[in-house]
Amino acid sequence: MLETQVEVSVRQRLMDSAVLLFTTRGYAATSVREIVEMAGVTKPALYYHFESKEGIYLAILDELVKIADEGIAASRVASGTARQRLEAFLLGIYALFETKKAWVRMINAVFWGPAQGAPPFDFETFHRKLRNVLAEIVAEGIAAGELRAADREDVTLALMGVLSFNMDLDLAHPELGLGRDGLRRVLDILFAGLAAPALTPAHQETSQ
Amino acid sequence: MLETQVEVSVRQRLMDSAVLLFTTRGYAATSVREIVEMAGVTKPALYYHFESKEGIYLAILDELVKIADEGIAASRVASGTARQRLEAFLLGIYALFETKKAWVRMINAVFWGPAQGAPPFDFETFHRKLRNVLAEIVAEGIAAGELRAADREDVTLALMGVLSFNMDLDLAHPELGLGRDGLRRVLDILFAGLAAPALTPAHQETSQ
Repeated sequence: MLETQVEVSVRQRLMDSAVLLFTTRGYAATSVREIVEMAGVTKPALYYHFESKEGIYLAILDELVKIADEGIAASRVASGTARQRLEAFLLGIYALFETKKAWVRMINAVFWGPAQGAPPFDFETFHRKLRNVLAEIVAEGIAAGELRAADREDVTLALMGVLSFNMDLDLAHPELGLGRDGLRRVLDILFAGLAAPALTPAHQETSQ
Repeated sequence: MLETQVEVSVRQRLMDSAVLLFTTRGYAATSVREIVEMAGVTKPALYYHFESKEGIYLAILDELVKIADEGIAASRVASGTARQRLEAFLLGIYALFETKKAWVRMINAVFWGPAQGAPPFDFETFHRKLRNVLAEIVAEGIAAGELRAADREDVTLALMGVLSFNMDLDLAHPELGLGRDGLRRVLDILFAGLAAPALTPAHQETSQ
């Protein structure tokens, strides 16, 4: 039992070290030696858990996909209005991000950064899953008359944009990020509309 | 006259080649030889215009800042409602992005990617300028009663998020980006609000 916990911890430490090095130095420039030194373990420990640098890189991405899948499933609320479900979902994804910031930062580095010879990985999966859940709830909300009749792709982009930009701000400028409370406030503004109530001619145009 | 045009063209070709190489291979892995080969010129041409790899890198960033400054100034409309000015500004910035996509893509690569030994550069300037213009118009719109009474930082994040995410989508997945027309539609939705008119209790809460 204790042995298993130690192994989990070594495995986790190796992954966290690799995440940091892949982010700051890049995949190509990072060596197995640097990863084990930062994790405070020996090379055989890395080979035992991951076989190679390529192995630990793919294990990190696989674990992130697993966490994301669980988070998407857990944040998806079955009951409530479309707005309540969308807010619960987006805030749940943001909370998940808060537990794995360094890992998301690595994804940004790998995704946007120059090719580094890392093994190929389907980065679209997470984005597509998020997008699909949102688009589905939006479509249901529009069909139920809860959300304004609009193109669901447009509405989904607005929601993804606010979520994604708040995450990026937090990663790039922690002092500017609005956090989870800020995301909640921004979503409230989005649902109510930026325009002052009296000056929203669209109310007449789209009222049912 | 002709000679000057040729020189401008060589200079531009060198910069476009360097942008592409810094993006795909990274700053560290790119050599002066590769840049001049891609541009179809000789090494002395690069040394004449930029002195070094560091020089062309900084010249690219300086030119982008200059273009951005001009774009920000040009997109800033003095008259109209806050909504009209915000939309004109955001669509103007998006139009600017469309003319320099490869360059913005390089900024993403350098900003998010691993450190590559490139000379330091203040990447915050553009972001801060954009943000300040938006926050200022938002504050004026709230003060004038044109925009819903809300925290201007929150409203600014919503606008920046939609702009930024639409650009990132276009860079990462051109097939998913909504383009300038899509940005206009999303902004319309943002101002009117996602919630269907009849179901927006915030109307009562914040009416003046």
